[in-house]
Amino acid sequence: MAHGTAHGGEKLQKQTGRLEAFSDGVFAIAITLLALDLKVPHVTPSSPDLASALLAQWPSYFAFITSFFTVLIMWVHHHLIFRLVHRTDFRLLFANGLLLMLVTVVPFPTAVVAEYLRTPAAPSAVTLYAGVFVLISVAFCLVLMAAFRPSILDPDASRTAVARIRRDYRWGPPLYSAAAVAAPFSPWLAMGICAGLWIFWALTTRSVD
Amino acid sequence: MAHGTAHGGEKLQKQTGRLEAFSDGVFAIAITLLALDLKVPHVTPSSPDLASALLAQWPSYFAFITSFFTVLIMWVHHHLIFRLVHRTDFRLLFANGLLLMLVTVVPFPTAVVAEYLRTPAAPSAVTLYAGVFVLISVAFCLVLMAAFRPSILDPDASRTAVARIRRDYRWGPPLYSAAAVAAPFSPWLAMGICAGLWIFWALTTRSVD
Amino acid sequence: MAHGTAHGGEKLQKQTGRLEAFSDGVFAIAITLLALDLKVPHVTPSSPDLASALLAQWPSYFAFITSFFTVLIMWVHHHLIFRLVHRTDFRLLFANGLLLMLVTVVPFPTAVVAEYLRTPAAPSAVTLYAGVFVLISVAFCLVLMAAFRPSILDPDASRTAVARIRRDYRWGPPLYSAAAVAAPFSPWLAMGICAGLWIFWALTTRSVD
Amino acid sequence: MAHGTAHGGEKLQKQTGRLEAFSDGVFAIAITLLALDLKVPHVTPSSPDLASALLAQWPSYFAFITSFFTVLIMWVHHHLIFRLVHRTDFRLLFANGLLLMLVTVVPFPTAVVAEYLRTPAAPSAVTLYAGVFVLISVAFCLVLMAAFRPSILDPDASRTAVARIRRDYRWGPPLYSAAAVAAPFSPWLAMGICAGLWIFWALTTRSVD
Repeated sequence: MAHGTAHGGEKLQKQTGRLEAFSDGVFAIAITLLALDLKVPHVTPSSPDLASALLAQWPSYFAFITSFFTVLIMWVHHHLIFRLVHRTDFRLLFANGLLLMLVTVVPFPTAVVAEYLRTPAAPSAVTLYAGVFVLISVAFCLVLMAAFRPSILDPDASRTAVARIRRDYRWGPPLYSAAAVAAPFSPWLAMGICAGLWIFWALTTRSVD
Repeated sequence: MAHGTAHGGEKLQKQTGRLEAFSDGVFAIAITLLALDLKVPHVTPSSPDLASALLAQWPSYFAFITSFFTVLIMWVHHHLIFRLVHRTDFRLLFANGLLLMLVTVVPFPTAVVAEYLRTPAAPSAVTLYAGVFVLISVAFCLVLMAAFRPSILDPDASRTAVARIRRDYRWGPPLYSAAAVAAPFSPWLAMGICAGLWIFWALTTRSVD
Repeated sequence: MAHGTAHGGEKLQKQTGRLEAFSDGVFAIAITLLALDLKVPHVTPSSPDLASALLAQWPSYFAFITSFFTVLIMWVHHHLIFRLVHRTDFRLLFANGLLLMLVTVVPFPTAVVAEYLRTPAAPSAVTLYAGVFVLISVAFCLVLMAAFRPSILDPDASRTAVARIRRDYRWGPPLYSAAAVAAPFSPWLAMGICAGLWIFWALTTRSVD
Repeated sequence: MAHGTAHGGEKLQKQTGRLEAFSDGVFAIAITLLALDLKVPHVTPSSPDLASALLAQWPSYFAFITSFFTVLIMWVHHHLIFRLVHRTDFRLLFANGLLLMLVTVVPFPTAVVAEYLRTPAAPSAVTLYAGVFVLISVAFCLVLMAAFRPSILDPDASRTAVARIRRDYRWGPPLYSAAAVAAPFSPWLAMGICAGLWIFWALTTRSVD
């Protein structure tokens, strides 16, 4: 019977392992696909100024760097949360699935911002961008709520770590919502908030670690 | 001799591990590539209504979400099946290979539906979509048949779990076939069946878990 | 000292593990990217025959299936070879790197065949296709030669398995070369040889397993 | 208390494992995406010389092979560095994140070089290419500096290995900078330096191994 319990525990461990590995795979692929949006500029033989054409693409580079580090920090946070978890269930599986779906979507609003940041369509483009991150921050809260239940949480998990992560995550939805609300009026302010937030999360992560 | 057996067991364990890791990789990549089909809409400076152009792409979002969660649930099921398996052989390897091939194909019918759902070509597009899922549900049955043989199944696998998975899978081919048959007459009904099925599988999964 | 040896052994084990995981990742991504070549056909509202347009793409499907199963079998073989290996070195690392490079290239000749199989350019397209597989089969031989050296091979590896893999691999370069030589005269014969070869390798694999 | 320490050690071990797995995933995807830049040439039925069109794409093949082996060697070096590390922290995480971002970017300058190597825009294209590798070699130095601190380094790590890696890495930034400086004057010389450097790193790696 003791053996049976140990065996069951090992199976559940393995289940969490495959969920983490699958999630890592999706994060790694989504973050790498961001770079596909860096397009080769087309210059003609008559005006072969490739250097200027490359520099003119700076909104692509800005959107790429912002999205890359935002997704990287999400991955670090995902990792910090699952370190505190010792098994999975239906609810955590689907909250995590929703989060992964939104993470795979990130290259899309990134490409929209890269294309339209310097055009009159910038307000709509940046609203979409910030809106996707509002959804992602809500999905992260759903994952947190599913993960930090007594049946899921590792009994050895540090209460301080759980409380700190829970507290820091409260900032996600309101701050990204502020960016989404600001976007129609000032796309640049909204992009600034998004870029500022990954730096904020990075510093928050340092304190958690 | 006892050592030799233990060693052989470990080798086989490792083999299953690499098969699962490879399958997870293919699932993770295929599910992430779905988002590549979300295209940046082209608006001109004269009519820069990006918001409307983004909303007009709703068939892309609908097809993306349906395919994403369908593939996600396939991955969960794949995981549930391989948890009950303790070794692999030629037949399981190739049934699994066929399944993986069809999973990598999913972005293709998804893109066809996204492109043609609101055009007169919708019946053909949705027939292709449902048809691919008929093939996938058949491939899943082949994997089940290859996996749930005495030589492959883990001797400790719960008979109840095996019986329940086997029973639930009987629904796949007929229900997706019904969608494929309905598609030429009512593409919307067929897409509704496909979208309804991942919710059905999700609820089925809950009971298995 | 005994401790030092054990420690070193563990380190080497880990090194092989990361090499296999990296190789699996490249195989999984390359095999999934093959499906990106299945393009949405463009039909106009005036002649909305999507079904015919989809059927007319059959060379894409044929090339996709041939390449998918060929790469899948390569992965299985890669796996069989590395099961017999207990450490890695510079030579094996670079033979494997060359093999991986050629595997990532496979979607390119596959797309060329899909595009030109039914055009007057078919001979060149199929020569390229078979030529890439000649290079891959040579790279596989280099991996075999690097892997099956006394310092690399697991001391417990079955001599029969090593001999059988070594013998079966002799067929790769001459048979793919025959396809490459036949391609300029009969592209269909050459594609038939390539398609026949993965079935041949599949049956060979069964006997190894 | 001894148990607590062992447990903490295991957790940290796991953390390094997930970081390595994530990094491996990004390397594997970035290296595979390089091949997406091998484009199917378009030939018309009137002049169906596909063979010449394929040969005319040689700058693509040259840029692809140079980038593939450069990234492969980076992966090997990343692996060698992390073998000497037994835990991770905020600083190593972000130095590694910066390195991964630049690795995912590699397909972009590779595509730019493939497109413009034989045009008057070659100097700008090759400057971009070499410039990205200057940044990567600097990021590698940041990773080294973060990894080879007493709190991060495995206490059992060989001092000789650490010293040798540290010494070999000093060559990266100046040599790639030389290529970047040479590029505006002689794009071919600069590409030659980049191609020569991966061979140099390969030989360096042999001696480390």
